[in-house]
Amino acid sequence: MEFFPAPLEKLTEQFAKLPGVGRKSAQRLAFFVLSLPMEEAQTFADAIVDAKKSVTLCPVCQNLTAGGLCSVCASAKRDESTICVVADPRDVLAIERGREYNGRYHVLHGVLSPMNHVGPDDLQIKSLVERVAAGGIREVIMATNPDTEGEATAMYLSRLLKTFGVKVTRLAYGIPVGGHLEFADDATLMRALEGRREL
Amino acid sequence: MEFFPAPLEKLTEQFAKLPGVGRKSAQRLAFFVLSLPMEEAQTFADAIVDAKKSVTLCPVCQNLTAGGLCSVCASAKRDESTICVVADPRDVLAIERGREYNGRYHVLHGVLSPMNHVGPDDLQIKSLVERVAAGGIREVIMATNPDTEGEATAMYLSRLLKTFGVKVTRLAYGIPVGGHLEFADDATLMRALEGRREL
Repeated sequence: MEFFPAPLEKLTEQFAKLPGVGRKSAQRLAFFVLSLPMEEAQTFADAIVDAKKSVTLCPVCQNLTAGGLCSVCASAKRDESTICVVADPRDVLAIERGREYNGRYHVLHGVLSPMNHVGPDDLQIKSLVERVAAGGIREVIMATNPDTEGEATAMYLSRLLKTFGVKVTRLAYGIPVGGHLEFADDATLMRALEGRREL
Repeated sequence: MEFFPAPLEKLTEQFAKLPGVGRKSAQRLAFFVLSLPMEEAQTFADAIVDAKKSVTLCPVCQNLTAGGLCSVCASAKRDESTICVVADPRDVLAIERGREYNGRYHVLHGVLSPMNHVGPDDLQIKSLVERVAAGGIREVIMATNPDTEGEATAMYLSRLLKTFGVKVTRLAYGIPVGGHLEFADDATLMRALEGRREL
């Protein structure tokens, strides 16, 4: 015997599919939707379909965009000769927040991960190589995460792109601003020492 | 300058409206929806509108149902002379999980809360009084939460319903099964002593 009406159960199941949402939270979210006025529920539903329908990849940098070029690639003010390679569209946002970088991006949509069967063909690597091969690029900055897979991906791309005579750089490692030496892990501290700069 | 396409931002905003979902989680959920195949996103959107459209209140007990009587009120096997009064449809589910209770329910959809401007007219109290006034009810069990507002609601309803000569009972207080005396709060322990039963 079921005690919640089927449409409510179905909605709960849908919420439970979301990452980090358990059965109990999914139920709470479904009840919340029931408590919304009809028009707000409709707006929510429309936002899902609309995002799915109209969000595309920028044909140049593969970042998310709503049709056509993304705002960075469309801007004439950005330095075309520098490409910052990131794994995820959210990494673009993180770098943009710093308001320091003025080049272009390239979004890989993942990192190489043999364990998860992600090879070069599953990422936006071909499109990156084509951009570099087309010329006009001075520097490619590898801004993948400093973990095993991010490192491996940066190394792989670096070897691939150097054949085009382009300069390939990597984000600096070191102690985070505001961090404490005491709490820094050994690997980070060693990298911070290695990368020391003259004052 | 915005860095995510507007439809993605809109979807993120919608997710951020959900209870317990912050801006960062909302973004993660929006990205997850983008990663779904179109048909799955459509199913999700449909589930929202569908739940909102087709979930109604049972005309007898006010529990959630998909049109018509709820499964408990529609069942001939349930004892019609006992009504268990709960604040929320989820409480019905909690009691049904115990597979012990065989009566009917009445869902108040909230508790009296002067602080939040919730008075008797904002709850399903009139419909409860009408059920009791119609006769055939032997016992009404108050199963609101054992907190201040749940207590006050139970006391209020108890006084109201006793005028109809019906027996009104309250869930027992005491130490939870599997609990430790050591960790029980004073109020619970006193109630457990008061309510002691002969072995």
